[in-house]
Formats: sequence, structure tokens, C-alpha cells
Amino acid sequence: MSELSVTPEPPYYAVIFVSRTSGDVVGYAETAAHMLELAARQPGFLGVDTARSDGVGITVSYWESEEAIGAWKADADHTSTRATGRARWYDGYELRVARVERAYGWRR
Amino acid sequence: MSELSVTPEPPYYAVIFVSRTSGDVVGYAETAAHMLELAARQPGFLGVDTARSDGVGITVSYWESEEAIGAWKADADHTSTRATGRARWYDGYELRVARVERAYGWRR
Repeated sequence: MSELSVTPEPPYYAVIFVSRTSGDVVGYAETAAHMLELAARQPGFLGVDTARSDGVGITVSYWESEEAIGAWKADADHTSTRATGRARWYDGYELRVARVERAYGWRR
Repeated sequence: MSELSVTPEPPYYAVIFVSRTSGDVVGYAETAAHMLELAARQPGFLGVDTARSDGVGITVSYWESEEAIGAWKADADHTSTRATGRARWYDGYELRVARVERAYGWRR
């Protein structure tokens, strides 16, 4: 069972990526894991949560700044991966960049 | 297979709810569905995406304004549901309110 991401006090940024996969998902899991590894190596990366069910995947990554998100986007390997995903795995996706303004958590 | 939510041009708001469920999930699916129905009836509700795997659930709801989010939170039934969830179903959760600043989508 995955641990939930723990993030610092707001403000910070979230990239909300919601996707629907097509039937062809060969190589998807490995590439998705690789993209998360790339994100985790970027300065300003704060954490990520991900879940997938019923053909819909949601990955929310957390970042210190919009600049950190831009650096991730510019990463050449990541850009190549995005093109592959678009061509092969996804029926569609929505990507939203949002500024987290307030947050709270609870643990048993 | 669920359809992805389609939202208007930013700015708007997102409530990012990430939870880890405990072993006791009796009644969870029904209550989660009911909470989404309540949200969908609120003025200012724009849509919702949800996925759950590996014990982690992510539900992102989209809203026209922070006021609309506040009205949903204040909904008595919803508030009661949240208390039940905290007591019974969740090992923990993180809730983040974020202002969506830019977004783009793609469809095959």
C-alpha cells in the first residue's frame, strides 16, 4: 500500500494529470514509473500521489514553484515520453496546473 | 470506462482529496457515490474525476469558486459523511484546495 504524500505548508503547486488509457498499454507501467523517477530528481519536487481504476488514471505531483514544473516539462526524456504516451497509450488526458492555497491532513 | 471531466477555461478551483482506506470498507462505495451526488447538486460544481488503486484513492472535484466549495463543505449530510469516513474507512487523508491557473487537454 502506497503512503500518502506529505507536503509543506501552502502555497505550493500541484500538477493534476488525469488520463484515460487506450487498449494498448504495453510498456505503460514502466514508462509511468520512469516519469515519476525523473520528477523526483527535479529540484523543487515535493511529492506525488497516483491511482488508476476503471480506465482512468490520476497523478498529482506537488512542486515548490512554477519554475520547477517548467524544468520538469523541459526535461528531454520526459518530453519524449509524453509524445509516446500521446501516440500509443492515451485516449485522452487533461493536465491542470494549480496553486495550492490551503491544505489539511488527518491520520488515524 | 469513465469519461474525463471537461472544465471551462481557468481560473477555477480544484479540491484534491487523497485518501488511504483501512481494511473496513463496508458501505464505502455507496457513501462515496452519495458524496459525489451531493457535490454535483451544488451551484458552482464543474466536475469530478476519481480513481482508486493499491489502497489509495484520489478524487479531484472542480468548482467555480471558493464559495461553492464552502457551501459543499457546509452541507450537513456531507459533513456527517466525512465524520463517518474519518471514523471507519480512512487510515488517513490529505485535502488540498487549489486554484487552477492553466490547463490543457488532448483527445485521440
